[in-house]
Amino acid sequence: MIKAGIIGATGYAGGELVRLLLNHKEVEMKWYGSRSYIDKKYYEVYQNMFKLVDDKCMDDNMEALADEVDVIFTATPQGLCASLVNEEILSKVKIVDLSADFRLKDVKVYEEWYKIQHKSPEFIEEAVYGLSELNREDVKKARLVANPGCYTTCSILTCYPLIKEGLIQPETLIIDAKSGTSGAGRGAKIDNLYCEVNENIKAYGVTTHRHTPEIEEQLGYAAGRAFCLNFTPHLVPMNRGILVTAYASLAQDADEDAIRAAYEKYYGSEYFIRVLDKDVCPQTKWVEGSNFVDVNFKIDKRTNRVIMMGAIDNLVKGAAGQAVQNMNLMFGFEETEGLKLVPMFP
Amino acid sequence: MIKAGIIGATGYAGGELVRLLLNHKEVEMKWYGSRSYIDKKYYEVYQNMFKLVDDKCMDDNMEALADEVDVIFTATPQGLCASLVNEEILSKVKIVDLSADFRLKDVKVYEEWYKIQHKSPEFIEEAVYGLSELNREDVKKARLVANPGCYTTCSILTCYPLIKEGLIQPETLIIDAKSGTSGAGRGAKIDNLYCEVNENIKAYGVTTHRHTPEIEEQLGYAAGRAFCLNFTPHLVPMNRGILVTAYASLAQDADEDAIRAAYEKYYGSEYFIRVLDKDVCPQTKWVEGSNFVDVNFKIDKRTNRVIMMGAIDNLVKGAAGQAVQNMNLMFGFEETEGLKLVPMFP
Amino acid sequence: MIKAGIIGATGYAGGELVRLLLNHKEVEMKWYGSRSYIDKKYYEVYQNMFKLVDDKCMDDNMEALADEVDVIFTATPQGLCASLVNEEILSKVKIVDLSADFRLKDVKVYEEWYKIQHKSPEFIEEAVYGLSELNREDVKKARLVANPGCYTTCSILTCYPLIKEGLIQPETLIIDAKSGTSGAGRGAKIDNLYCEVNENIKAYGVTTHRHTPEIEEQLGYAAGRAFCLNFTPHLVPMNRGILVTAYASLAQDADEDAIRAAYEKYYGSEYFIRVLDKDVCPQTKWVEGSNFVDVNFKIDKRTNRVIMMGAIDNLVKGAAGQAVQNMNLMFGFEETEGLKLVPMFP
Amino acid sequence: MIKAGIIGATGYAGGELVRLLLNHKEVEMKWYGSRSYIDKKYYEVYQNMFKLVDDKCMDDNMEALADEVDVIFTATPQGLCASLVNEEILSKVKIVDLSADFRLKDVKVYEEWYKIQHKSPEFIEEAVYGLSELNREDVKKARLVANPGCYTTCSILTCYPLIKEGLIQPETLIIDAKSGTSGAGRGAKIDNLYCEVNENIKAYGVTTHRHTPEIEEQLGYAAGRAFCLNFTPHLVPMNRGILVTAYASLAQDADEDAIRAAYEKYYGSEYFIRVLDKDVCPQTKWVEGSNFVDVNFKIDKRTNRVIMMGAIDNLVKGAAGQAVQNMNLMFGFEETEGLKLVPMFP
Repeated sequence: MIKAGIIGATGYAGGELVRLLLNHKEVEMKWYGSRSYIDKKYYEVYQNMFKLVDDKCMDDNMEALADEVDVIFTATPQGLCASLVNEEILSKVKIVDLSADFRLKDVKVYEEWYKIQHKSPEFIEEAVYGLSELNREDVKKARLVANPGCYTTCSILTCYPLIKEGLIQPETLIIDAKSGTSGAGRGAKIDNLYCEVNENIKAYGVTTHRHTPEIEEQLGYAAGRAFCLNFTPHLVPMNRGILVTAYASLAQDADEDAIRAAYEKYYGSEYFIRVLDKDVCPQTKWVEGSNFVDVNFKIDKRTNRVIMMGAIDNLVKGAAGQAVQNMNLMFGFEETEGLKLVPMFP
Repeated sequence: MIKAGIIGATGYAGGELVRLLLNHKEVEMKWYGSRSYIDKKYYEVYQNMFKLVDDKCMDDNMEALADEVDVIFTATPQGLCASLVNEEILSKVKIVDLSADFRLKDVKVYEEWYKIQHKSPEFIEEAVYGLSELNREDVKKARLVANPGCYTTCSILTCYPLIKEGLIQPETLIIDAKSGTSGAGRGAKIDNLYCEVNENIKAYGVTTHRHTPEIEEQLGYAAGRAFCLNFTPHLVPMNRGILVTAYASLAQDADEDAIRAAYEKYYGSEYFIRVLDKDVCPQTKWVEGSNFVDVNFKIDKRTNRVIMMGAIDNLVKGAAGQAVQNMNLMFGFEETEGLKLVPMFP
Repeated sequence: MIKAGIIGATGYAGGELVRLLLNHKEVEMKWYGSRSYIDKKYYEVYQNMFKLVDDKCMDDNMEALADEVDVIFTATPQGLCASLVNEEILSKVKIVDLSADFRLKDVKVYEEWYKIQHKSPEFIEEAVYGLSELNREDVKKARLVANPGCYTTCSILTCYPLIKEGLIQPETLIIDAKSGTSGAGRGAKIDNLYCEVNENIKAYGVTTHRHTPEIEEQLGYAAGRAFCLNFTPHLVPMNRGILVTAYASLAQDADEDAIRAAYEKYYGSEYFIRVLDKDVCPQTKWVEGSNFVDVNFKIDKRTNRVIMMGAIDNLVKGAAGQAVQNMNLMFGFEETEGLKLVPMFP
Repeated sequence: MIKAGIIGATGYAGGELVRLLLNHKEVEMKWYGSRSYIDKKYYEVYQNMFKLVDDKCMDDNMEALADEVDVIFTATPQGLCASLVNEEILSKVKIVDLSADFRLKDVKVYEEWYKIQHKSPEFIEEAVYGLSELNREDVKKARLVANPGCYTTCSILTCYPLIKEGLIQPETLIIDAKSGTSGAGRGAKIDNLYCEVNENIKAYGVTTHRHTPEIEEQLGYAAGRAFCLNFTPHLVPMNRGILVTAYASLAQDADEDAIRAAYEKYYGSEYFIRVLDKDVCPQTKWVEGSNFVDVNFKIDKRTNRVIMMGAIDNLVKGAAGQAVQNMNLMFGFEETEGLKLVPMFP
């Protein structure tokens, strides 16, 4: 039994972490960090937790927290984790950072896309990119895990086997992604009001979304060389879910069988990644509330392209679920502990 | 470890039963009954179950099923369970019937409100009304449990303590209920199409909804005498959730303290019923995906009425969750086994 | 052709006024008042108006506005209109106030329910309560119209004929109302975020909602005596629409025919009020985007109560539409001018 | 004043035609054709039309209809219009066909993608493809107009200027489209139930959607040569709206200015097409209920691609609105008559 603390426990990702950790056999929740609600009962912020959590929200004190717990989750805005972490803390406690602070290996790329100065670049090298299925062995040994972004998790896992096996031409890759609104966080903004989102769909951050370089970096490793791609996110009137539709030109000799074999090769033994039957398109509803990633593809012979599709719950595999999966790996627990969640339908 | 079968496994309540039973330590699922999808893989009907359930759908054969399993859930249209059950079957297997067939003690009332002839009235007397918290001891000994309706569960639990303690005048009771659309089932009807339900709210079954006599019977027991009430259901554009807003005139001497004391008396030690803090109104989202019932009340001194409010997830506490709770009681398992579900928010 | 200005043009009710006035033959829009967006193009706030409105937002200057236009709509928070209006302004311009400032004849009731001091009680007497169908002749002569609240419009019109004709017992009246989220306005509040409202329903303002005294005052006039009632609003996951379900005990001799006759008597020749066919329940979707009020009722002989139902679009008949209807009356235009909007379905 | 009849008046596109024609100054509705609801009052099918339409539904008799009206709209499944039309009918009446029967000039392509035999190929040559802005002059002279598909209207208008001006490489074009659920029609199918669509997004018809050859044919004319593209539709949980996100590699010398100039050249004087300001992405909500098409684009220098975006209301510009626009052209009415609809927000 380990002890866990969350910095940023009252955002949507933080709330989802609480939901998952409450049912985790090896974890005891000790610290509900939330600058905005200090001294308020946690259940007053999230009444779904009434009678389940009786603790009060605490200030975001990573120093104090490091003495009390074995693992810290930071579910905070960009920059905060980097500004708090130091060697002493990392010598005492493991950290799973759900922000972008340690996802990009090139600090210049981080500063260019996020428009903030990185406060602790000295830990970037050490941090392990926590896409659990791809970096499992490194995550096991990590002190500091950079939990991937929601769009990135879905985008990378949808395309990885084809890139890795050279079945598509990387430079032709176009990723069109659709997300539920919880991805936008719990901030009180007009753009996220019910009436603005409901009965509406829009693209946003076109050519400039900050998950772009993260996807490029990771898929670049798979391709064996750097390349650029297009990534366009859309806001969909639903709470949860990300759907990725990705397009790429086939490499020579790539066909249905080769592509299916590639997905099977990398995902065939993965519990959380489900390669759907031929002609079944992923739907976000089929993974809602779970840590699953559903993927599939379709070849268009007329244009010699493949359409790759992937679906996740952005708050689970796209945030809190993968964070718990990484924690399981870091502490030697069963990788699926606390995560055998059956998707809820309808 | 017991074996379970579901007749009607491909409706929404059936699907929710599967979701819950897959995570139940003491139950092995053996039979996915579904007349409409015989021989089709269950996951082809509900792709959220891909890789989790590999069985095919089977015909609704209660005789055969009784030889294979320890408990049968019937999540079927009214009349089917009554037409299938017999003494031999009940001597082999326990049944939790999610239809209305055995909920009403007076067969005439059943036939009048449901417009069908009851096929096995001889078991009505024996059947136990499975509102778990109110009839716990009887459920433990039952062979045949009549699982309550969704609206009824929420309505009864919201009002019960006040009726039982004589704090309101029963004849003044008016129940205005709002339900998500999964309560209407998975039948292909124009009225339940996305475009008809979305951005819309309506009352339906006004003065004639079939849950009315069920609520009246049970609250009549609590009151110690029969009485009539108004029950009006509404269809709300959401998948899950029932909210009950109930109005009644206060009895003499009833006040804030007496009412809160009544709720505490009956629900204070119940895991699944949460009496919210003063002035907090229940929201369906706070119980979504869980077996919780959230209740609260507000007194209006100007009109000498109390407004009682209750919220459940119609597919969990209003159907599959309570069915599992009843099964737990019938087989001597921990009552909360498989049901410690943290509500999902958002 | 008259000139119109709106103070508070960038709220949802203000935006709806613009939508309606753009298609009004007798009105030219001259002033888009909005403190929050001064000097910003109106279409930048509401891109649906791109190419339709090229004006900039102006400060809320009622003095200046009075010299430029013939009618001012105030779609502002409570208290603002009362703080701006004066005799000089009213001598130049007609005002339709969409806030609550002049709806209640008793200033003490206003100050008690709204918790603010009334800044110009001297105009309360003169102000006409603009429920167009009930106060048509007075509205025609008014300088200052108090446009009714959204819940009040729907509640009063649903119950009025039965109260007026003595067919129900006023003290037994209970109004359970359900509203779309646009009624909560465009303020950036966590409670109104998409993820908080979607897949959720709740009651709010139970026993304390400020539309209560407004409904009581107007229905008190109809009853010929003051009385108290219960009014409970609920927030529904949809943009537009209010549904009222009202319950009351029948007076002696009241029956189906008498009640239908009462509705016909008062509404039979009203263009905007549609008494639906027997057994057809109002749905908010059927009036969406229009100025219609759909009403109907059902008698429950078992409890001797009548259930009255009414539906409106809260932004049209519940706000901007009725404001335009009142303007039409005040200026002698065709009452339906600009308002023959066919409801949009789906 | 002309007389109009609709064959297929009770589908969603038919209902929208009724909504628009009721407010059209030059048209009198004479025939509400609906095989499914013969002899039922039209308003009983669509209660939003209560008191607005008192007619009964009639059988789909094009012969009889041709003697009674000046224009027939066919809003029917594929194949029906082609099976009914003949020279005698066309000599009496003008037809706007909202089905796909006359959209494709190559009957083999039609039969391959639609899997039905064409019943009157002799009229394909004559039929005018009714994308009003592109074929205005031909539409004016037409007896038979093939009203474009919803996805096609949005896709073509979003990309047309860039293809026409040679600013993109046609073969690189990828169209990712997202549609509200009314596009799926009013058929009672499980896939379109509220609970299946809500909180969900999926791609469907991947590589096989029947609007693909229609887009290819029309954009092929613009390009001056035939080419293939990828078109992927998605189902979004909303009633109305289509958003198109299209990707293509820039041709040599194409830049921001050249592209904006191209949009201005073709759409600058079009009432219904709005080229949004730089960096403003189209949202479906901004055109809801209107005949507008909102378009814009963004260049990604990193990948040398342009992302083109377009939004329409699928039932208006994507079906009924464009049909009325075409009728206006065919009869010499003002092109915008009955269509100056201000988008409804929220």
